[in-house]
Order: sequence, then structure tokens, then C-alpha cells
Amino acid sequence: MTARTTDVTASFAFSASHHDGTARLGRFTTPHGVVETPAFMPVATHGTIKGLSMHEVSAAGGQMMLSNAYHLYLRPGDMMVRALGGLHAFTRWPGPMLTDSGGFQVFSLAKLRTVQEHGVEFRSHLDGSLHQYTPESVMRIERNLGADVIMQLDELIAGGAEIEASRSAMERSLRWLERCRLEFDRIERDGRESAPEFTVSPGAPPLDTFDAVLDLVPPTQALFPIVQGGTHAELRRASLRGILDTGDWVGVAVGGLSVGESKPDMYAMLEVCEPLLPREKPRYLMGVGFPDDLVEGMRRGIDLFDCVVPTRMGRHGTAFTPDGTVQVRQSRFRTDRRPLVEGCGCPGCTHYDRAYLRHLFVSEEMLGLRLLALHNVTFLLDVTRAGREHLRAGTFTSWSTEWLARYRAKGKRIVESDDE
Amino acid sequence: MTARTTDVTASFAFSASHHDGTARLGRFTTPHGVVETPAFMPVATHGTIKGLSMHEVSAAGGQMMLSNAYHLYLRPGDMMVRALGGLHAFTRWPGPMLTDSGGFQVFSLAKLRTVQEHGVEFRSHLDGSLHQYTPESVMRIERNLGADVIMQLDELIAGGAEIEASRSAMERSLRWLERCRLEFDRIERDGRESAPEFTVSPGAPPLDTFDAVLDLVPPTQALFPIVQGGTHAELRRASLRGILDTGDWVGVAVGGLSVGESKPDMYAMLEVCEPLLPREKPRYLMGVGFPDDLVEGMRRGIDLFDCVVPTRMGRHGTAFTPDGTVQVRQSRFRTDRRPLVEGCGCPGCTHYDRAYLRHLFVSEEMLGLRLLALHNVTFLLDVTRAGREHLRAGTFTSWSTEWLARYRAKGKRIVESDDE
Repeated sequence: MTARTTDVTASFAFSASHHDGTARLGRFTTPHGVVETPAFMPVATHGTIKGLSMHEVSAAGGQMMLSNAYHLYLRPGDMMVRALGGLHAFTRWPGPMLTDSGGFQVFSLAKLRTVQEHGVEFRSHLDGSLHQYTPESVMRIERNLGADVIMQLDELIAGGAEIEASRSAMERSLRWLERCRLEFDRIERDGRESAPEFTVSPGAPPLDTFDAVLDLVPPTQALFPIVQGGTHAELRRASLRGILDTGDWVGVAVGGLSVGESKPDMYAMLEVCEPLLPREKPRYLMGVGFPDDLVEGMRRGIDLFDCVVPTRMGRHGTAFTPDGTVQVRQSRFRTDRRPLVEGCGCPGCTHYDRAYLRHLFVSEEMLGLRLLALHNVTFLLDVTRAGREHLRAGTFTSWSTEWLARYRAKGKRIVESDDE
Repeated sequence: MTARTTDVTASFAFSASHHDGTARLGRFTTPHGVVETPAFMPVATHGTIKGLSMHEVSAAGGQMMLSNAYHLYLRPGDMMVRALGGLHAFTRWPGPMLTDSGGFQVFSLAKLRTVQEHGVEFRSHLDGSLHQYTPESVMRIERNLGADVIMQLDELIAGGAEIEASRSAMERSLRWLERCRLEFDRIERDGRESAPEFTVSPGAPPLDTFDAVLDLVPPTQALFPIVQGGTHAELRRASLRGILDTGDWVGVAVGGLSVGESKPDMYAMLEVCEPLLPREKPRYLMGVGFPDDLVEGMRRGIDLFDCVVPTRMGRHGTAFTPDGTVQVRQSRFRTDRRPLVEGCGCPGCTHYDRAYLRHLFVSEEMLGLRLLALHNVTFLLDVTRAGREHLRAGTFTSWSTEWLARYRAKGKRIVESDDE
């Protein structure tokens, strides 16, 4: 094992070419390719975008995928993913990838978690087994998985938390960021931990990617810090200052939003952060969101988004449309031969009609879930693509105003209550 | 409404170009295209092949699809399918289609069924509502649905039934065939029943295919009789004689097999029927089957097959391979980066490896079900395609012998118990 010094900044780059207010059109370069921003990242929690193939999402315009370190750590194991060639080889997605640390999942899925300064102890939501997550162990996990961008471990609190609880979690997240950074750099310098031997049963082929396991040199990755602070402007500013004081980050994420607070509160926090966020770095709004949240986020200078909502709502029969969300099981679609969304290029809209989509859901047929999940992902990819086109054309502000007015106006009439 | 006289035989044709023993290579012409036989028909029970899109199955080599009159009668309703343009337009499958009458489903799914000479009274497996199926009503349903080939209503009995019960059901099936034929011809002559008005809610578009509802002229269809008689050779012969005495059928189906009897019994019944089946007509073995059943069926002169097994087993994690079936959840696949079946052209085998497929099933991810269902359908389509190629080359008998030996020999070692 030889140590190496990689100039991470040479493998990652960001530049914005067009601006309209605080919105911007950019290019985020990663070791696995370029992402045109603003961009929505479909979520492959367990290394697969629920119900969809990477080919379908790529054909729909997906540029960068997100996976979850918590889920992959539990199953099949981060060392196993590394043994199988890393996250890109495992999922067969050759493009840019990001792993969330799993902090959110530990705080929302795991059982009996106890948070201390050292880290979080929790029981797996799968089998109740006991695990410990520390800033250092999360870095080792994410460096085994091998995504291009990896996220720090942070402490999460409920959406409407009081200022003292928010401050405490924000400050701990800053201390954990520093520990993440030290461990990230240590692995860069000293290499990854040595791999366990994997048992290969008699008759099975040798583990042909065992070289990857033995390769202790970590892939080229960027660690993103996460701005916390709940819905308290002064905490958000303090979090951002703390982050920018401690490192020259490749990009910065805004977390702890879309977790129960109101939409105006979320947008207000973005407006608090925007002037302090470095202009020359990509900005990632975590876990957001709905179509209107993407447009509002783009207006406030966000470059990257992710959310499980499009696939989850699609599985439940709710579709995004330019006029708000629609539940396809409605009986009014029984005889409706129009495409779900006129002009949408997804297979559900170009090959099938509303009557058939309704039939698939009423009959509980898997093809319905697939088609609607892909439609919703396509819809969010299209919203960010339209945002990019209008930024390039200098028409972003007027387009986004009209887009939001239509989505919300007619939405009042046909929107279903969300099934989230 | 004007009556018409269609020469059905002009729209349907069958010719066999190559023979090897009793196996034959043929072309079955239907109003919606030609099927090269022997062929496996994937099953779209509710108008969709479970988990798959018609595009995927077409790309895998699917030529003719099967749907189920019982399921579509209950939901969305045969008259609704007719209103939406018929089964081809509804499912967006432009090629040849066949509907099973649903007799099998009435006898296996419905609750509280009572069979009388007039027909079957049953309660829906969906909501317990009361329905009556007669030979005449089934013809009206299947002519509303509009598949190219439609099946008679027959009486089904359990696999190992005694000869008297088998004889009684076989003879009733012959009487019902005659009533089906009379109603089929009457509809051809007098037209379809007039359609109910469909309620179109305010704001919804007019039913743009209402012309199809109003069109009382039935599509060009062929009615297939079904040979019954359980596992009793003399009953099978009597059934076939009865069928051939009463009409000049476009094709003939063999039913009531693969319902619990042993495989040798099934193959023996095919050997009983084969010499009596008209050489110049396609022969359809209903509800069969497994890969080896297809090869055994081809050897015994069968031209068409259908079965839900490939998608059902795929959803449960069992894959067809040339060496028998395999359960992909097995831990020995945990680190196995080989394709599931070397040389298979399906997306699961060309894009992914065994370790990832196992991960998808262990994580209960929908993509796993999709990939394995498509693999299994592809496998059966490939088996019949290989049969056709070897018939053309004159090497069918030796190929099929070797194929069966490999499937069964190694199968002994790695076959899983079927999850059917």
C-alpha cells in the first residue's frame, strides 16, 4: 500500500455560466462525468431506483444518482459493495453518484437510537442488530462504497424544533463535520482499511473483483458539509460560517429542511443561506422535493436536489402534472384516452392513456407502479431541464413565475392530498 | 347495423414447412399478424404481462399475447374494453392476441360456483358479486374484447379425476362448444349487442372511441375448441372426434393438462391426441408450461403454448436456466459477478450480475422481480425459437434430446423446489 496525494479539486469543478436573480445555470464536474445544474438526482436507496432501471432513468435525463450509506452498510454491506467493484460497478451506473451518510435514516428508521457526542448507537430497522455510527465510521463506510460525493454525518432534529435543541444539534453537526474531514483526509493519506476475506462457497467462481477489495487506495471523492439550524435564521448563518471557516469544500449542502416545517419556512431558510453560500461551489438542497419546491429552490440558487417522493407517490398512484398532482385511480379517468400529461416524453404518457393507467392501478398491476414512478421522475428531471433552458435563454424568472402560478392555481382544483 | 359475412378462413391460415418426427415448424396467420410456430404466448391476464411492458416482451421475441376473459369481464368490463377500442388498443399490443374464456378461472378462483347444464353461476373473487357464465355469454364477452383467437367455455375438473367425472365434463364441454359455435356465428351474422351509455363526468373529454362501442360489427375472430378428457386416453379420443365432427375449426386446443396430473401422464395424453389432431391446423396446449414441457410439447407436435409460470416464478426469485431452475436468493450468489445465464440476451443477464440480482431480491426491490420475470419469459421464448431454428435445420430431434438431458441432469443438482 502506497499513500498518495490526490488533488481533489482537480477532479471536481463547478462553474456557473448564466444567472437570473439568484438562480444559476452551472456545470458540476465529477470523476464520473459532468452534471448540468440545476439537476434533480433520482434516489437509488438500496442501489436501485425503486421500480426502475438505471437505463430508464438515464433515458429520462437522469445525470447523477443518490444512494444511501445506511441501507448499503446494513445490506449488502459497504465492504461487500467495495468487493464487488464499488457502487458504480455494483449498480451499473457509470455516471456521477452521491451517498447520503444515512444520518437521516438513523434518526428516522433505526430503533432505540441513543445520541452522544461520540456518535449514534442504534438498532437496525431490518433485524434489530446493534450498530454504532460515528463520524469516523461513516467516512470509512462511504469511502468503501465509493460514490463521487459523500456526505458528512450530522445530527437531525424534528422540523419545528425549539431554538436550543436546534442550536445544540447544529453545533454538534459542526463538530462531527470536523471529525469527518479528519477521517476523510486520513483515509486519503493512509488508505482504506484492509478487507475481510469473503467466503466463496465450493463451486462458485472466484471473486473476480477481489483486487478491488485489496485496493486500499480510496477512490477520488469529495466530502460535502451540511448546513443545519432548523428554521432559525441565526443558527443557519452560524452553521454556514462554521462550515466555511473550517475547510475549502467542493460543495455545500443544506439539510434539515422538508422535515415537517412549512413551505414558507423552508423557502425563507434558503433565502437566509443564499447570500452566504459560496457562488463558485455547487449547492445541494437535501431531500427536496416536490415539483414546486424544485422551482422555488432553483429561484433561490440551489443546484442539486434529491427526493424519494416521485417514486413513492408513483407507487401509490399519484402523478405530477403541470396543474398539480393527480390520483390516477379516480373514476373520471375510466374512459379517458388522453395521455396522462400532454407533451410528456415518458413511456407512460407516450404509449398509454389514462384509462389504461387507471386500470393498472385498480387491478394492482406492477406495470402501473413502474409507469407512474418513471413519469414522476421524468417530470422532476424535466422541471430542472426547463429551468436550465430558461436560464440559458434569460427567461428563467418569468418562466418560473408562470410555472408556479399554473401549478398552484389549477392545483387547487384537482390536487389530491399527498399520500406521503 | 348491417350484417356481413366474413370468410374467417381468409383471415386465418396455418402452414407447416418443416417436420421432424411429429414436431413441425409453422406459420399461423391472424388478422393482426403472423406467428412463427412453435411459439410461447406470454400471459397478460389483466391486459398486462405481470411486471413487464409489452415493449419488453416484444423485444424479447414475443409474437402473440394471451389475456383472460374472466378477469377483463370483471374489471374493467368487456364492454368497457370494447368502448376503449378493443383489447389491442386497450393494451397497446398491435400483434396477434388470444383470450382464454376464463373457464379455468371460474373453476379455480371464483367462490361458490354451481355448475349446471345451462352454465356456471359464481361469485367474483374480487367482491363476491354474483355472475353467470354460459357458453353464449362467454362468446358475447370475448367478441366484445376482440382478440384474434377466442376460446370456448369448457368444464374443468381436477387433474386426477375418475373416468366418470372426466367423461361427464368432457361431454358437457362438447355440448357447450356447440352452443359457443352457434352464438359465435349468430354474432357474426346479427352483430354485437348494443352498448350501454358510459357516463362521462363533467370536465372529462368525450369518449373519443365511442364509435367503437357503437360498431356492432364484430372483429374477425376464430373460435378454438378445447380437447378435454383428463388423463383417460379413450376420453381424449372421444373429445377430439366430437370436436372434429362438428366444425371446420381454425385451430384446436388441448386443455385440462398441467392441472395436477404427473408429467408422464401429460406427455402421454399429448401422444394420444397427436395422431388425431388435424395436421393443417395449429395446436395449442393450454396453460403449459415449464421449459422442459415446452420441449416435450414441441416434440409431440404442439404449436402454441401459454403459461403464467415464468412471471410468477420470476416474482418469487426463481430463474430458468439451461441446467434447471435456480433460486437467486441463495447465499452462494452473494459474491458471484457472472451473468445469471451466460449468453442470454435479456437485460437481467446482459446488464447485471448474480450478486446484484440477489441483492435486489434480498432487499425486496421491484427491479429484481422485473428482471427475473423478463428473464424467464425470454427463456421460454428462446426455447421455442431454438426449436424453430432446429426444425428449419433438420436437427430438432437431436437438439431436443440433448436439451432435455442437460436441463434434467444438472437440474438434479441445482434445481430448487418450485414455488408454484
